[in-house]
Amino acid sequence: MTNSSTNMRLKLPITCFILEIILIILFGVLVVYDHDTDAKLFNKNMKINNSTAGGNDFYYRYPSFQDVHVMIFIGFGFLMTFLQRYGFSSVGFNFLIAALSLQWATLMQGFFHGLHEDGKIHIGVESMINADFCTGSVLISFGAVLGKTSPLQLLIMAVFEVTLFAVNEFILLSILGTKDAGGSMTIHTFGAYFGLMVTRILYRPRLEQSKHKNSSVYHSDLFAMIGTIYLWMFWPSFNSAVTAHGDPQHRTAMNTYYSLAACTLSTYAMSSVTAHDGKLDMVHIQNAALAGGVAAGTAGEMMLTPFGSMIVGFLAGIISVLGFKYLSPILEAKLKIQDTCGVHNLHGMPGILGAIVGAVTAAVVPKEVYGNGLEKVFPDVASGERETSYQAGMQAISLAITLAIAIFGGLIVGFILKLPVLGAPHDNACYEDSVYWEVSLIKQDSWSQTV
Amino acid sequence: MTNSSTNMRLKLPITCFILEIILIILFGVLVVYDHDTDAKLFNKNMKINNSTAGGNDFYYRYPSFQDVHVMIFIGFGFLMTFLQRYGFSSVGFNFLIAALSLQWATLMQGFFHGLHEDGKIHIGVESMINADFCTGSVLISFGAVLGKTSPLQLLIMAVFEVTLFAVNEFILLSILGTKDAGGSMTIHTFGAYFGLMVTRILYRPRLEQSKHKNSSVYHSDLFAMIGTIYLWMFWPSFNSAVTAHGDPQHRTAMNTYYSLAACTLSTYAMSSVTAHDGKLDMVHIQNAALAGGVAAGTAGEMMLTPFGSMIVGFLAGIISVLGFKYLSPILEAKLKIQDTCGVHNLHGMPGILGAIVGAVTAAVVPKEVYGNGLEKVFPDVASGERETSYQAGMQAISLAITLAIAIFGGLIVGFILKLPVLGAPHDNACYEDSVYWEVSLIKQDSWSQTV
Amino acid sequence: MTNSSTNMRLKLPITCFILEIILIILFGVLVVYDHDTDAKLFNKNMKINNSTAGGNDFYYRYPSFQDVHVMIFIGFGFLMTFLQRYGFSSVGFNFLIAALSLQWATLMQGFFHGLHEDGKIHIGVESMINADFCTGSVLISFGAVLGKTSPLQLLIMAVFEVTLFAVNEFILLSILGTKDAGGSMTIHTFGAYFGLMVTRILYRPRLEQSKHKNSSVYHSDLFAMIGTIYLWMFWPSFNSAVTAHGDPQHRTAMNTYYSLAACTLSTYAMSSVTAHDGKLDMVHIQNAALAGGVAAGTAGEMMLTPFGSMIVGFLAGIISVLGFKYLSPILEAKLKIQDTCGVHNLHGMPGILGAIVGAVTAAVVPKEVYGNGLEKVFPDVASGERETSYQAGMQAISLAITLAIAIFGGLIVGFILKLPVLGAPHDNACYEDSVYWEVSLIKQDSWSQTV
Repeated sequence: MTNSSTNMRLKLPITCFILEIILIILFGVLVVYDHDTDAKLFNKNMKINNSTAGGNDFYYRYPSFQDVHVMIFIGFGFLMTFLQRYGFSSVGFNFLIAALSLQWATLMQGFFHGLHEDGKIHIGVESMINADFCTGSVLISFGAVLGKTSPLQLLIMAVFEVTLFAVNEFILLSILGTKDAGGSMTIHTFGAYFGLMVTRILYRPRLEQSKHKNSSVYHSDLFAMIGTIYLWMFWPSFNSAVTAHGDPQHRTAMNTYYSLAACTLSTYAMSSVTAHDGKLDMVHIQNAALAGGVAAGTAGEMMLTPFGSMIVGFLAGIISVLGFKYLSPILEAKLKIQDTCGVHNLHGMPGILGAIVGAVTAAVVPKEVYGNGLEKVFPDVASGERETSYQAGMQAISLAITLAIAIFGGLIVGFILKLPVLGAPHDNACYEDSVYWEVSLIKQDSWSQTV
Repeated sequence: MTNSSTNMRLKLPITCFILEIILIILFGVLVVYDHDTDAKLFNKNMKINNSTAGGNDFYYRYPSFQDVHVMIFIGFGFLMTFLQRYGFSSVGFNFLIAALSLQWATLMQGFFHGLHEDGKIHIGVESMINADFCTGSVLISFGAVLGKTSPLQLLIMAVFEVTLFAVNEFILLSILGTKDAGGSMTIHTFGAYFGLMVTRILYRPRLEQSKHKNSSVYHSDLFAMIGTIYLWMFWPSFNSAVTAHGDPQHRTAMNTYYSLAACTLSTYAMSSVTAHDGKLDMVHIQNAALAGGVAAGTAGEMMLTPFGSMIVGFLAGIISVLGFKYLSPILEAKLKIQDTCGVHNLHGMPGILGAIVGAVTAAVVPKEVYGNGLEKVFPDVASGERETSYQAGMQAISLAITLAIAIFGGLIVGFILKLPVLGAPHDNACYEDSVYWEVSLIKQDSWSQTV
Repeated sequence: MTNSSTNMRLKLPITCFILEIILIILFGVLVVYDHDTDAKLFNKNMKINNSTAGGNDFYYRYPSFQDVHVMIFIGFGFLMTFLQRYGFSSVGFNFLIAALSLQWATLMQGFFHGLHEDGKIHIGVESMINADFCTGSVLISFGAVLGKTSPLQLLIMAVFEVTLFAVNEFILLSILGTKDAGGSMTIHTFGAYFGLMVTRILYRPRLEQSKHKNSSVYHSDLFAMIGTIYLWMFWPSFNSAVTAHGDPQHRTAMNTYYSLAACTLSTYAMSSVTAHDGKLDMVHIQNAALAGGVAAGTAGEMMLTPFGSMIVGFLAGIISVLGFKYLSPILEAKLKIQDTCGVHNLHGMPGILGAIVGAVTAAVVPKEVYGNGLEKVFPDVASGERETSYQAGMQAISLAITLAIAIFGGLIVGFILKLPVLGAPHDNACYEDSVYWEVSLIKQDSWSQTV
């Protein structure tokens, strides 16, 4: 790897142009408006239905969509600005790979979700939310490799990860009939373990050459808090964005709200108790306080109750801080997993916890508790096709499948990303914007002058 | 008070754990889903109602809820980052006490609002909004004591203040039939005078030892503007979040919008005219431009008209800037009230103005102006139970009660917070993150290097 | 122009007070609640309609309104904080002139849109959105003159520009029956060329005296990214905020979403390929990635298809980066247009592109594609009043009219703004907060210390 390999002048434009042109062609061939977005179909539908609200999903979903959108671009983007010299890349690469992923995800999810009888993918607001969800998973993996990859590597990773995400989601939701509205498994567990495996394969034994830049300064921590707070506030919208309308959507938002509140208190408690002098650590607050949202991602739409949600959030905060404090150093030292953002603590373990809580909740809450509402949450149980215990079993199997695809997929993709032509930064130039961005020395100094 | 008293290693975790465990137990015993959130009740209701919209409050309220949520966590949190060395605490303690308050408020407001026949508190999106409202009041008080209290003191303050807030709100809304949808009285006046009384009791004669840190730097003022702008933009949602559906919600949002716009112009005018060289002062812009939202909090849902709203906002901006310029120094010098954020100018006086405007509007607008819409705004007047003048009287009495409970409550709570065990910072370590947060010297320097 | 002319102590307050008092009086005389906001009219309407949703536009529009509101105040405000010493002015003057513009726009748009039979302007949520739209146009012009004008000049400019905006909008939408829901012409093209002409007239031959301040530092670029990302995320709401309900609103949001995604990829590609060493330039990312939203502003509600939208966005990104790289320096050197933010590249050319795409789409998509939905998009074509080709012609003529009014208006207003009494900054004090803001030397240093 010579210095010139990190010059993106030809590689990045060519890759972006080729990818975008392929996307445009595939959209031209495959994608049409759904009945809710198409001028002809919508009004045809309206005529039959004779109702202003009927057939129009848009108004129920769009505000949640925008909340999710904020989480993807502001939430993830600014959460990762905590590094002192890597703000442009955190927000900027987040922006780039998200813009690619949401287009590619529309195609992949549309393809696996099943083409319509006309052989086309029909899209509307729900496909936009699902594309954002899939993008979220890619950004979680980005968190694991943050600071150690070129934009080219990230684009390649996104293409493969989106594809595998769609496969896994298809297996879980369409084949196994698993419930995972907020994506504890499909989004968080998948994205985390995929990213951890990629960073494992890309292990850099001499990363300590960039160690002095792998930390925050005062301002960068405040920028990161913008990301944290947005993720925290809008997580109720995230978990409820694609549930059935009515009580499930309402209940999911509320369960997530209380899970996060409880998680915040346990995070502050654990952050203080694990510090030698009782001082709070920004890393914990920025990350672990969000674990309650992850952990409520599967069971949120079930009759988990606020009480149950608070217990889940409470535990998630504890697990997450302990992970940052004690497990991450072990993963790096023993398993050679260099997890920049600690996604294992925010998305990995809380995602698994969420999957388990989902399976347990499906198993232990009797179907009578749902009454007529059962079919909105567990349609296969309501129709008599399966028992709650069977549903719970499917939920548990889904976690295993997700872990398998994520780990195996991350392994393969990690090896692909090792290609020298992809222009990874040198060991002594990680966590550093100036490798890929115009940053005048003056500008750079302004950020890092006191380091 | 020795230095070690500010060490939170045991105190903070124990307090957080105990509070959260009590909350979880009480939620387990007392709280259930309401008919709009519960799978069984919702669908039962739907069967009777046979309507998609009927019985489903969620879609009318949730977007406003999220706007309010942003105001609580981003708005209040970042508004208080104006201090040069107190950004972590401003956002971080705001986050912590808000997460506690909204859980405790759910219980207190549910309790006072009346348990259902099953002896339970039934919760849904409206209780989430109300919990956020109550939290807002606590954060206003936080603004008065900002920089001078430990997180432990703040948690204790929050528990008491939420309780008293619920008592006051119950007296006003349930007993007296007062209208106060945007909380000029219940939220702003209460939070401000409660906080002012607490900071009075916690008066520090030697606070000038920390004076050099009680100011802003260039970046911290820009961070604070994030808070200001979010509060300003979403205030129409705040004031209208819990009004009746339809015209009252729409009208409240619009009145608030115009009140804020007018307030912004008078704020800039007054800021310039009160400066010796005509230069604008960031403190005024950050705070006084919001007074128009506070002052429209009671009358916003009434037939105040955009014209009336603009007059109210215009006056609120003037009063607020004059307060910052002339009254705050007097309050500190003569009454020993050290009001860090100037909450008296943003929430105190404009809150009182809003209460008076509410009473006057209730008195002078004839009920014919409301037509059939009267029952949505003044149900007791519409039912013939009371006259408009009686309603106006109740509005005025409510202000007096609010002031009394806030001042008396703040007095008591202030004395409780003086307990040395609660770990308040030393006089020379106020407005300083490093007392309670991990801030490396390098990080600290980065923020304050030029001071 | 002496130094004292920049002292705003009397001028600014007097102007603000006079303007606001005029506004209040005009609102008192002319403005009333519309049937959706008025207690009496709303409930009367409801009785006839006997429907919860009927007649209540508010719930369909308000979430979009808040997204637009965020774009106006956070999006535009923070996008312009990229300058190293001009953050207070960027956010603060944006705030001031927006607060003025939205009030004045309510009157002007209400007046031109036609007074009701009672001789009044009836306002509701849609007028609030339209007022915000008009404000957006003023803020685009502000981008062209950024750093070179006093707040007084900006207020005067806003008053005239809002008026001319309303005239142009009236001609396009009401007389010519042009479609321009997202304002490619009315907002972007108008605002850009108006501002460019103003800055041309205000040409400063000795502006190089302030050149060292006309650049960014590391933090200011990150603050600007907050603006960029918010504009990017909420542009689907912007373009769809005032379309007809149902499929047009849904389709517009979706078309904009894909246009922006494609634009982001072409922006990154072009930014890298035009740099000598392949490094990305923050100026391009902050601005050009948004051009896809501008370019979808007219055709977004038409049956453009996601495929078509992506082509449009793709081209917009390319054009915009090329503009920043090659055209802007020529405009400054040859035409003496000093365009601080490069609004010609973000709003000017992409606005023209959007207008052309709108005309072409109107011409080439057969009306059969719309079915019964035609009347929601092209009511005059649906009623048989005009052919699609005629509609397309009107769209093209509208672009010419917009350019003419913008350029001629900007010319006149530019000369008005040259009045020395308005207190423009000296050539050596441009791009500098301390001329109009209280900024202690220490504070100033903190921002610019490394320059």
